[in-house]
Amino acid sequence: MTEPQKPAVVLLSGGLDSTTVLAMAKKQGFVPYAMTFRYGQRHQAEIEAATKVAKEVEVVQHIFVDIDLRVFGGSALTADIDVPKGDSPQAGIPITYVPARNTIFLSFALAWAEVLGSSDIFIGANAVDYSGYPDCRPEFMEAFERLANLATKAGVEGRRKMHIHTPLMQLSKAQIIAEGLKLGVDYGMTVSCYDPASDKPCGKCDACQLRRRGFEQNGLSDPAY
Amino acid sequence: MTEPQKPAVVLLSGGLDSTTVLAMAKKQGFVPYAMTFRYGQRHQAEIEAATKVAKEVEVVQHIFVDIDLRVFGGSALTADIDVPKGDSPQAGIPITYVPARNTIFLSFALAWAEVLGSSDIFIGANAVDYSGYPDCRPEFMEAFERLANLATKAGVEGRRKMHIHTPLMQLSKAQIIAEGLKLGVDYGMTVSCYDPASDKPCGKCDACQLRRRGFEQNGLSDPAY
Repeated sequence: MTEPQKPAVVLLSGGLDSTTVLAMAKKQGFVPYAMTFRYGQRHQAEIEAATKVAKEVEVVQHIFVDIDLRVFGGSALTADIDVPKGDSPQAGIPITYVPARNTIFLSFALAWAEVLGSSDIFIGANAVDYSGYPDCRPEFMEAFERLANLATKAGVEGRRKMHIHTPLMQLSKAQIIAEGLKLGVDYGMTVSCYDPASDKPCGKCDACQLRRRGFEQNGLSDPAY
Repeated sequence: MTEPQKPAVVLLSGGLDSTTVLAMAKKQGFVPYAMTFRYGQRHQAEIEAATKVAKEVEVVQHIFVDIDLRVFGGSALTADIDVPKGDSPQAGIPITYVPARNTIFLSFALAWAEVLGSSDIFIGANAVDYSGYPDCRPEFMEAFERLANLATKAGVEGRRKMHIHTPLMQLSKAQIIAEGLKLGVDYGMTVSCYDPASDKPCGKCDACQLRRRGFEQNGLSDPAY
């Protein structure tokens, strides 16, 4: 007798991490529903990558959520709005930081999970590479899971217990890649570059260098080049 | 010597509750920044009411956040998308319920608070009138506050302790109105109707009846008529 397959919402950016997470969710027997955010700074190349990945992995449904984070300012990715200056509390936060980003993403994922009757949300958060980001840590994810169980009818009534799955949390980039390769992930489809100059990633930004080293540690070159 | 005034993000729908909260935040000495969501079902009348209220109360800034909750389906307010039928877990949820709505709203408020360097978010949640909504209860708000302090740099570094203010939580509609009248709120500006037929509220929906009774209990008629 086969277990009935359970639906899961998977946050999918089209990058290396979230693509690996999607493959892992499927491997664990979940029926994946992919959710991709378009939020101002998101490059078209990433949206296209997410679309390709979702098709390749045969998700049941892939939705795009448009959110305009530019309305707040506060990130270098929102250059058309004045960013607070001087003794602003943002000093020192990385240029790519988007305020409360994972909180917002997980809130939308929770809404969709509720509609789908799903108890499972997957996110490619990682505490190794992103130790500077408060909303990438296990404590944050546990607090969100607790919130999720208070925020929904099903959670409150005990019909479902929400789980926030973070299978990459403690893995290095090399370990993430090794895991994905075992699952047959085609990393040539994924885009991680913060600033792709043309069809190819720049190779110079933090994201490009991080994944290149990850492939090198697996004795491979990055198939994105 | 005067205390320096602190900025606060106030969620403002243009309805009776959030308008009262805005007046209360100001009375408590906060410098209010108002945030209004446009999410598919939101009627133009409410947006106009929020705009009027924000001007009248002289908020420092009023921003509108566009979010498309229709992408999920799952609410009668999203009629152009198929709503799950049959033994779906949504059975019994009120027609006006939007999945994970307050989680999403508070996430955006948190992002803005972080950008503004604010530690204070005000929301007109009420456990008396909305006892059926999991995300209107004190337990939910406490869990969100806990999350907020793990989600932001300032929270993690102990520079700021985020507070979610819910001054209406335990008040009846009549008490909310009494409080607002003391603060000089002009309730003629506010719109609460779920389905305003024209310029005037319908007078028949739950929201209309609830506020009418609240005014009656204060010996008044609803100035919205």
